[in-house]
Order: sequence, then C-alpha cells, then structure tokens
Amino acid sequence: MDKDRLDRQIEFIREIDKEKSIGRQTYLADASRKEDDAEHAWHMAIMTVLLSEYANEKIDVLRTMTMLLIHDLVEIDAGDTYAYDENAKKTQRERELKCADRIFSILPEDQGKYMRELWEEFEAQETPEAKFARTMDNFQPVILNDASKGKSWAEKGVHLSQILKRNARTGEGSEELWKYSYEKFIMPNVKKGNIKED
Amino acid sequence: MDKDRLDRQIEFIREIDKEKSIGRQTYLADASRKEDDAEHAWHMAIMTVLLSEYANEKIDVLRTMTMLLIHDLVEIDAGDTYAYDENAKKTQRERELKCADRIFSILPEDQGKYMRELWEEFEAQETPEAKFARTMDNFQPVILNDASKGKSWAEKGVHLSQILKRNARTGEGSEELWKYSYEKFIMPNVKKGNIKED
Repeated sequence: MDKDRLDRQIEFIREIDKEKSIGRQTYLADASRKEDDAEHAWHMAIMTVLLSEYANEKIDVLRTMTMLLIHDLVEIDAGDTYAYDENAKKTQRERELKCADRIFSILPEDQGKYMRELWEEFEAQETPEAKFARTMDNFQPVILNDASKGKSWAEKGVHLSQILKRNARTGEGSEELWKYSYEKFIMPNVKKGNIKED
Repeated sequence: MDKDRLDRQIEFIREIDKEKSIGRQTYLADASRKEDDAEHAWHMAIMTVLLSEYANEKIDVLRTMTMLLIHDLVEIDAGDTYAYDENAKKTQRERELKCADRIFSILPEDQGKYMRELWEEFEAQETPEAKFARTMDNFQPVILNDASKGKSWAEKGVHLSQILKRNARTGEGSEELWKYSYEKFIMPNVKKGNIKED
C-alpha cells in the first residue's frame, strides 16, 4: 500500500467535512431550518438516480452524481453565493478558483485532477452530464421552496423574472423537468403571492 | 410523459428530505455539533469514489454509492439506532422494515423495488458492494471521532471491545482500510484515553 496516497485521501475526506457547515438559503421541506451544502448534494445525487430517465440526452449517471456531490466543495473557502445576490456573484468565480486550487491539491495527483476536471465541467455546462447536473441544482431548491410554502422566496422578495433568469438553461438538461418545475411549482407560487410578479 | 410516474418520484424526493433531520451520534470533525444522516451519506458517497481502489474485490462504484445514499432512509420512521445501544438494536430490524414498506412504495413500482433491493442487499452484507458499503459506514465515523478528539467515544464511555465487535466484519470490504482505521485511529485513541481499555 502506498501510505502517502491513503494519507492524502483521508486528509481530503476530513477537510471536506467542512461542507456540512456551509449554509444555503433554502429551507428544509418542513421549514424548520435552512439546509447545508452537504445535505443539498446528497439530495441531488438521489434525484439523479431517479430522474436521469428524463434527461434530454443520455447521461452517465455515476459521472453526474459525482459531479453533484463535489461541485460545492469550492464553497468551503468561498462561501455560498446566493443565487440572487448580484454583488457577491461578481467575485464568485475568483473566490471559487482559489479554493479549487487548494482543496483538490490535497488529493493524490490523479484524483485531484479528476475532481478538478469534474468541477470545471459542471461550471462550463456543456456536456449532457453537466447540463443535467445544473437542472438538478436548479430544480431541487424549487421543490423545497414550494414544500416550505415559499418561505425563502417570500423572505427574500424574489421576483419571477429573477427565477426565470436563473432557470434560463434548466431545460437544456431536461425539458420535461423544467416544464414540471415551471407548471407545478413556480407559477402556482406566483399565484399564491410567494413569488413577486414583475 | 407519464404524469403519475413523475408525481410519485417527486413525492418521494420531498419525503426523503426528512433524513436531514435524523441525527447521529458522531460529531463533525470540528466538534461543533453532531452530523445528520444525509450529511453522513454524502460523505460516504464521496469516500467510495476515492477509496474503491482499496476494496478486497472489485466493486460497482455506482451501485455502492447509491446503496450508501439510500441505506439510512428507513430511519425516517425508525430513528437512528446508536451502534452501542443494545436495547434499541433489539427492535431495530422490525422498525426499519416497517418504514421500508412505506417509503419505497411511494416510488413507481420498478424504482421502489430497486431501492428496496439495494437496502436489503446492504443489510445482508454478502455482495462485494454491500461489504464495501459497510466498511465505509464503519470507517467514516471513526475518521470523524478521531478528528473531533474522540469526543463522542469519551462522552459515551465506549470500550475498545465494543468498537472491535462493531468492526468485526469491516475488513471484509477492505482489509487495507480496516488496518488503517485500527492503527491510525482506534489504537491511538485508546492510548489517549478517549476509548476505554477493557
């Protein structure tokens, strides 16, 4: 056994534990508290197993799940950037790149390279896997926001135009899931007044 | 699109959100609070990607990850049974079976059957995937307990013999990882007095 290799893998596993302390703006379905990045990633990984049949193009499920499980690790240093915080979004890429450099270099070189490439693939949103992962990343909070009676949307005073802008490319991963999200969750919450009309 | 099928999948996705509220006895690495089932599963899924190279037998990584992501869903009704609570363990199987019946039947039949079989496979601990998944399930809390300076072990007054009993089959998934766990984490914590000698 290459002792140093396993030591580095374990160091990474211990380091990423910090993702459990990175908070998001989405409430749990029962609205009791907001979820964290690790819980969000776990939820989307299971969603991918169940919903990959709706992908526009055939996807590699393992690759997509792994991408989703690790895509927020860069927030360990950079913090969560709220989808509708335009100021924070200006510096987001720079902050996340710096964290990616640090965190993936903890791993043995081959695995660090693999994880880094997966993250870059997610960010670029060009492959079928990255497009579907983005669909999950946009759909999951919508499911929870609807379940928690629109609490997060209402608290932040979110407008329909902001949601539509954020979801401009959600349909690229799955037209069917985007349609479902729009018809079953987004528009009904506009009607209920949880999402502001423009 | 089969509307009913997608409705059932979304209902399941909303239902399993409750796993984020099922607490475990393991502290986060920084000892700030205890982790929950969803965070634990997320952590082990990434561990599986990185550590599958140490499996005694070649494993299907996607199958193993999916098994780990869903194996604690039965705790949504049954609650977390602490590894060293002998009384609670007596009724654990019965409580978990009842929850499995309910929760997996929310899904379309084919997917419910698949998830149920994965859970049963994990429980039976016979396939290479289930053995490796169990190795992860035993190794992950040891990494965190060591990182948090043995806080959970010390608080509960855990004895070495209890840990060795729990880990009796950890080596069946990976001899190398069990050896590492024993030498790097368990025995040093006996020396430090965080784990009681018998």
